[in-house]
Amino acid sequence: MTQTLSDRLSDYAVVAADLGVDAVALVPGPNFTRALTHSFMSHERPFLLVIPANGPAAALVPNLELRSWDLVGFQGVVFDWRDQDGYDAAFAALTAHLGIASLAVEGQVMRVFVHHALKAAQPDLQIVDGEQAISGLRMIKTPQDIAALQSAIDISERALDRALETIRPGQSETDIEQALIQALFAEGADDLAFPPIVAAGDNSARPHAHARADYAVKAGDALLFDFGARKHGFAADITRTFFLSHASDEAQEVYDTVLRANLRGHDVARAGVTAHEIDDAVTGVLEVSRFADRIRTKTGHGLGREVHEAPYIVRGNHLPLPAGTVFTNEPGLYDIGNFGVRIEDDVLITETGCTSLTRYPKELTVLPC
Amino acid sequence: MTQTLSDRLSDYAVVAADLGVDAVALVPGPNFTRALTHSFMSHERPFLLVIPANGPAAALVPNLELRSWDLVGFQGVVFDWRDQDGYDAAFAALTAHLGIASLAVEGQVMRVFVHHALKAAQPDLQIVDGEQAISGLRMIKTPQDIAALQSAIDISERALDRALETIRPGQSETDIEQALIQALFAEGADDLAFPPIVAAGDNSARPHAHARADYAVKAGDALLFDFGARKHGFAADITRTFFLSHASDEAQEVYDTVLRANLRGHDVARAGVTAHEIDDAVTGVLEVSRFADRIRTKTGHGLGREVHEAPYIVRGNHLPLPAGTVFTNEPGLYDIGNFGVRIEDDVLITETGCTSLTRYPKELTVLPC
Repeated sequence: MTQTLSDRLSDYAVVAADLGVDAVALVPGPNFTRALTHSFMSHERPFLLVIPANGPAAALVPNLELRSWDLVGFQGVVFDWRDQDGYDAAFAALTAHLGIASLAVEGQVMRVFVHHALKAAQPDLQIVDGEQAISGLRMIKTPQDIAALQSAIDISERALDRALETIRPGQSETDIEQALIQALFAEGADDLAFPPIVAAGDNSARPHAHARADYAVKAGDALLFDFGARKHGFAADITRTFFLSHASDEAQEVYDTVLRANLRGHDVARAGVTAHEIDDAVTGVLEVSRFADRIRTKTGHGLGREVHEAPYIVRGNHLPLPAGTVFTNEPGLYDIGNFGVRIEDDVLITETGCTSLTRYPKELTVLPC
Repeated sequence: MTQTLSDRLSDYAVVAADLGVDAVALVPGPNFTRALTHSFMSHERPFLLVIPANGPAAALVPNLELRSWDLVGFQGVVFDWRDQDGYDAAFAALTAHLGIASLAVEGQVMRVFVHHALKAAQPDLQIVDGEQAISGLRMIKTPQDIAALQSAIDISERALDRALETIRPGQSETDIEQALIQALFAEGADDLAFPPIVAAGDNSARPHAHARADYAVKAGDALLFDFGARKHGFAADITRTFFLSHASDEAQEVYDTVLRANLRGHDVARAGVTAHEIDDAVTGVLEVSRFADRIRTKTGHGLGREVHEAPYIVRGNHLPLPAGTVFTNEPGLYDIGNFGVRIEDDVLITETGCTSLTRYPKELTVLPC
């Protein structure tokens, strides 16, 4: 069953009612794209879609976006504004038209200048952070969403194979990163899901490392890839850690520990399990190992139109995960100054268990170097 | 003269004093990267650098970023927080430590959830939008900044040449877009500056068009490319419009009008001229033409670490532009349902005039098709 624009806007009206506010506001970003099935950029120009709990939606649109906006098929009132006039009058007209007292916004997406413009137009408007409920509508993936994710993941896996073929001793991390990026686009990526991490040796112990132009990879190094393609609006997020030429006994033991933690995540994932329970199971494997002091991260995060989205797979998050949730299962162990290992899969929760959308092999692999 | 971290932080202390607030806060983004000469991602994790008008800076850092943060060489107090604990306590400790009453933030960068966390920690904290003054520090480019921009632009121009060689009749806009993207990375881009616009025929009349998979380019079409590489943290932003096989008399006249407006922008740009004066001169050329009803945009925007940044080249902005400013000069004429033409150069203001960092030819070019 395909939702219409009207159906999708109704979803946000329900969120507004559930939150006990008069309306929900969306700004360009993943929820805006979900609602309209068209993506827009915003930059310095405010662009706002407001869906009341009761009554028709309204929008504030930069004039130069009107021609693209026409493709959306939006039936509500549109307040447009031109660069030369500024946007204050449009905000005043929008708030006067809406006549609302409270508004839930996407706290992780809306920027402060839009918040200020709303407050300037209507100083008594109560603005609450509705991020969790609003973005929560993206948590259960549709079959089309899953197909797009699978496509992004398949592209990413083929690109990793291509990039590995080009690795030569003496290459820098940035050489390998460039090869990976080119492979992603050659395999059909629409964009990078995020700037890839290619980290060797001690850099692999930094969870958010940057590739170094001045570090030549060498035998014995760990070599960690954390990357993904974006395809049809959806992001892949995969990590694999290899060893160059040989893996020390310690490296093998660390790798085995992380892999067991990762596999434990797949074992416990099924509809109804909480995010807390998954993190507890996965991190528990690391905690009982002799490398417990190398834990630095939670198990993972939701994945979809955004690389990081709800649900966050962390202890204390007692949200039961419904079938159709996709999350990253990415335990890691990080020995600062030495090396790190992370293994990350993109996992779809089903009624009876889970399916790994990531199919790239996980056994310890030593690359020739 | 190379600035040290301490020098750069002092710049923001001066901004705080100028704005009459107790401190400036930066979040990951272009100003954060300028201040620290290291880039960080933020996603759902608050990450904050606070520089008081008087006294040492302090930071709120996600625990898993600490290893990367160590590379910054920051000497102030750091409040870190772990995923499993949440960030409320860190915000409370930070605000208690700072003891400030007012704070200027980057309104176009900081998201509402960080604003809310600050207000939750200190309800009487006065938060003002200091975007213009804070980002204004990036307006005058250093020689290193200009070198990076030139590199991004050179890569982009070579990539356009490569992409044009691959165009064949019957290709879709997305085919051509993919060829352009691959060419950008093959020429050495670190990333795309933004998702490129490749728009043919009637789609060229949409200033922010999306490439269509189901539109085959054909003889007589306008073919507009608006794109850029990112290199060393800086973004190129170039537009060229071609015609396939032949250009109608009307197309030639429109093109000539846009080109004259673009050249007028180069003529008037020099240190001390205002953004208003540039837009007035450029748009004035379009307004006295018989295509005045096809004007839909201002002349341009600043360019640097961000694709759109200060100064905005728009009437009403009476800011005199100092030498070292880089802006886009991008007049266009858009006939909805028919075709559009835009010509965009990246221009460096100098004491005596300006230099076009974009050197790609601008005469009307008909591509074989």
